[in-house]
Amino acid sequence: MKRTGYAGAVRSEQIGQTITLKGWVARRRDLGGLIFIDLRDREGIMQLVVNPELASKEVLATAESLRSEFVIEVTGTVLARAQANDKLATGQVELEVTDLTVLNVAKTTPFEIKDDLEASDDTRMRYRYLDLRRPEMLSNFKLRHNVIKAIRHYLDDLDFIDVETPILTKSTPEGARDYLVPSRISEGHFYALPQSPQIIKQLLMNAGFDRYYQIVKCFRDEDLRGDRQPEFTQVDLETSFLDEQEIQDLTEGLIAKVMKETKNIDVTLPFPRMTYDDAMNQYGSDKPDTRFEMLLTDVSTIVKKADFKVFSEAPVVKAIVAKNAADAYSRKDIDKLTDYAKQFGAKGLAWVKFVGHEFSGPIAKFLPEIADELADTLALTDKDLVLFVADELDVANATLGALRSRIAKEQDLIDQNQFNFLWVIDWPMFEWSEEEGRYTSAHHPFTLPTTESAHELEGDLAKVRAVAYDIVLNGYELGGGSLRINHKDLQERMLKALGFTAEAANDQFGFLLEAMDYGFPPHGGLALGLDRFVMLLAGKDNIREVIAFPKNNKATDPMTQAPSLVSDQQLTELNLKIGK
Amino acid sequence: MKRTGYAGAVRSEQIGQTITLKGWVARRRDLGGLIFIDLRDREGIMQLVVNPELASKEVLATAESLRSEFVIEVTGTVLARAQANDKLATGQVELEVTDLTVLNVAKTTPFEIKDDLEASDDTRMRYRYLDLRRPEMLSNFKLRHNVIKAIRHYLDDLDFIDVETPILTKSTPEGARDYLVPSRISEGHFYALPQSPQIIKQLLMNAGFDRYYQIVKCFRDEDLRGDRQPEFTQVDLETSFLDEQEIQDLTEGLIAKVMKETKNIDVTLPFPRMTYDDAMNQYGSDKPDTRFEMLLTDVSTIVKKADFKVFSEAPVVKAIVAKNAADAYSRKDIDKLTDYAKQFGAKGLAWVKFVGHEFSGPIAKFLPEIADELADTLALTDKDLVLFVADELDVANATLGALRSRIAKEQDLIDQNQFNFLWVIDWPMFEWSEEEGRYTSAHHPFTLPTTESAHELEGDLAKVRAVAYDIVLNGYELGGGSLRINHKDLQERMLKALGFTAEAANDQFGFLLEAMDYGFPPHGGLALGLDRFVMLLAGKDNIREVIAFPKNNKATDPMTQAPSLVSDQQLTELNLKIGK
Repeated sequence: MKRTGYAGAVRSEQIGQTITLKGWVARRRDLGGLIFIDLRDREGIMQLVVNPELASKEVLATAESLRSEFVIEVTGTVLARAQANDKLATGQVELEVTDLTVLNVAKTTPFEIKDDLEASDDTRMRYRYLDLRRPEMLSNFKLRHNVIKAIRHYLDDLDFIDVETPILTKSTPEGARDYLVPSRISEGHFYALPQSPQIIKQLLMNAGFDRYYQIVKCFRDEDLRGDRQPEFTQVDLETSFLDEQEIQDLTEGLIAKVMKETKNIDVTLPFPRMTYDDAMNQYGSDKPDTRFEMLLTDVSTIVKKADFKVFSEAPVVKAIVAKNAADAYSRKDIDKLTDYAKQFGAKGLAWVKFVGHEFSGPIAKFLPEIADELADTLALTDKDLVLFVADELDVANATLGALRSRIAKEQDLIDQNQFNFLWVIDWPMFEWSEEEGRYTSAHHPFTLPTTESAHELEGDLAKVRAVAYDIVLNGYELGGGSLRINHKDLQERMLKALGFTAEAANDQFGFLLEAMDYGFPPHGGLALGLDRFVMLLAGKDNIREVIAFPKNNKATDPMTQAPSLVSDQQLTELNLKIGK
Repeated sequence: MKRTGYAGAVRSEQIGQTITLKGWVARRRDLGGLIFIDLRDREGIMQLVVNPELASKEVLATAESLRSEFVIEVTGTVLARAQANDKLATGQVELEVTDLTVLNVAKTTPFEIKDDLEASDDTRMRYRYLDLRRPEMLSNFKLRHNVIKAIRHYLDDLDFIDVETPILTKSTPEGARDYLVPSRISEGHFYALPQSPQIIKQLLMNAGFDRYYQIVKCFRDEDLRGDRQPEFTQVDLETSFLDEQEIQDLTEGLIAKVMKETKNIDVTLPFPRMTYDDAMNQYGSDKPDTRFEMLLTDVSTIVKKADFKVFSEAPVVKAIVAKNAADAYSRKDIDKLTDYAKQFGAKGLAWVKFVGHEFSGPIAKFLPEIADELADTLALTDKDLVLFVADELDVANATLGALRSRIAKEQDLIDQNQFNFLWVIDWPMFEWSEEEGRYTSAHHPFTLPTTESAHELEGDLAKVRAVAYDIVLNGYELGGGSLRINHKDLQERMLKALGFTAEAANDQFGFLLEAMDYGFPPHGGLALGLDRFVMLLAGKDNIREVIAFPKNNKATDPMTQAPSLVSDQQLTELNLKIGK
């Protein structure tokens, strides 16, 4: 029999109809002589009833054989339920079974198929097809599809052209580690999987495509954590002849459409703009979570007046105030915060509690002369906890930024229903890499420097500013973009500033430099992290929840056991040997 | 200044307006004291006029400096043209320039940017961004985008869920050669790039997704030719609980929508169905081009009566008739056809011409007794050329099928505006591989055998039939699909029939077999080759014309020089050595 519709979509308008459903047995109960079966399919669950007095012997026998996760085909009549179940969308009706066939049987599953899951991450991934049967997971993927659909409709309507760029590309040393693919034909040569189609999309602008987009897989061979996977998906776009404001406007429209169509939320446009410096100084982060306050305050000039060397000799002293948290944090709790602070390079964490208009805590004795000024500047009220970091500015910012987020979580200060988008603008072009002992690109080497600061490419690299913009949502970097360099001389200066010899620049980026000889238009664009965006919309904190078949922290798929050993013949064909 | 619109989109309704355009100089001509500039952008070309008597000195000087492919920004007033140019969509208007800025200069390009191109394939790929500037190429990619858009809208409306499957997957030995990706974390282990997401999409059916689709990159490390590339794009879909007819119906609806929305063609549904055996016997191909006749005729019983050993001792003798082609093919031409025939395994090619009701040619002397019957059976008319192959059935079919296509092209028998879709059904499950000396899957090892023939898995594998269907367009395999195996025992029997030991089956496909323990639903699907489909819609004969950055026949990108050498550090991190 053909299915007439989804089990989860049957409604009371269908009462009296004969319908055929196909799906999985979520539960079977034998109750008062009747057999009740919860039938699950993509759209939900519907109750089936087998009544021994009405059903055939065969149907009854089949019903009695059913166990969880059997696949069945069932035909029957839609009836009104005596007792409606308001928890189910199908709760007004049930199906009186007249025909029943088992399409496939099932062993006992390693975990029960329900949202409230008790299974390790690796078990979930090993039996991903069972994990994905859980309604919560399916709904994440419906959401993901709807996000993609909204994005595509928006960009299609604006005449963007969806162009597929290669996955087998050239390895470049800038940026993260590449995944390599050995060539069988060119001995000793390798393709690389793209970390992003950055240069290729720029070349599409050079080709006059004018507006390009792609929802595209990108790859980075880096160590993994909650919001990182070896392969991830990017909403990638590029335009010619637009300025940064126009690109930001476009992006805001895109996000507004996604929010409306998937969450029915009207976001306010334009999004707030915050400079990179303000973000670092006030939030201690280049991706500030603005759903709560607790801003960083520079108290250097005040505390310098106190007789406390740690403060008076530090380059800067900054503070955050955990409102009304004095009672919540014991000394032991604060010790934990101190340990946490040290992960961000701080040498220690100073603190006071402000209770009954009095400061208390180990350093309170140093503060009497400045107590009023401090309380005033920090707008303290009763039972506030104040945390200080005295250090280099970047350490103080990073440490207090991290503490700010941690305390907000611990104190439950965050409204989980809020979606706070903002732009972080006015980025530095370079950041100092302690590891490499040199300046590296804060974004990438193709970012346009501001006209005012470009001369510093041959001067103080710390002073070069980029025409770059990141979009931030709830403390996550949702994406970033920039205007790009389209003149060969400027691109060559940029690569030189990054330490490339002319030869190395040509070897790696010669094709881009050459392309700039032939009328490369002004252009710019943006990329959004799709996995992260969907994760946040789904209210999750790990992108695995919105990736159908993710890898674990060892970049392994516990289901297929990829990566795996390959045959000697395969290695021989690639002219490869394993070993140092 | 902001651009007000595309140059190629200006129309006579805008006469009198001041507009700003940005684009490329396609051509500059100085004529009668005026400077005419053809400005090109994504939407087409518009004529600009700089009148020395009206333009400022600066504008004039800039205009005089312009060369082909300079990028310019221009503002001016839209005027009616004195002499309209009917070849251009903007031919009714021209722009009188008041402001002109050069945004970027250009060297002389290695080839002229025009549709009628003279450049080698490698030059085109080396300067792909220039090749893509040609209106013809851009229009191929707009077409590609529109095809994708139509497909997505169709499947979205039918509640298919777009799910991204992994690119870093497990290597499997069945099928073509895998591209491998060495793992940095698991020494000596490799991912493989997917040849198709076949098993993964089946697991999505096991997960209850019910209807899946994806427009997805697939990879095969095979030798290349016109319609093959190392990476290609597949429209991949899978459904649960549908039978083959329903899946074919769905697919026809999809194709009808694409044809309507991109070519404004109403295709007739349903598409014709042809069995595999009929396709081979009548067209000599499993992907018959039905835009022309010239069917294969089995003349064995007739020619056996002739006193000609080559015919009477052959397993089968088949013929095709090239209508009215007797004059067109000299002996020398037919020698060429004979050489061609030998590529398909034929030992030779016999032929006769039928002129004035007489047979002529080397074997005509053997035919007198059967001349009338032969002429009758082959429905010969004056000046027909008849080609015979006497051989094993499969050789005769393949050879005559190839000759049929070649002659149709040479004789210009094909209506290029016709799009003939058909289904080839009733496939054999296995095909004999001379190379491997065993039966291999005609489609893949997950294809469902027909109920009637499944018992031959332990008998004569040549007799097992598959519930499989290929969709064919104009002699190309556009795609193929099947119902799949969803029961573990049957899947195990299939793998055994293919020569897998139980251990090898488990090693390679254990995760799929295990998944079949947990209520795997009946399912089936299909995959369409997107590149090939767009190529045919664009009227091209090489998929490179519809792939933005293709590889050449050595799987190399002449632009980026990928694949390339990588650093020792990269190899060390992967624990790899180059060399036997």
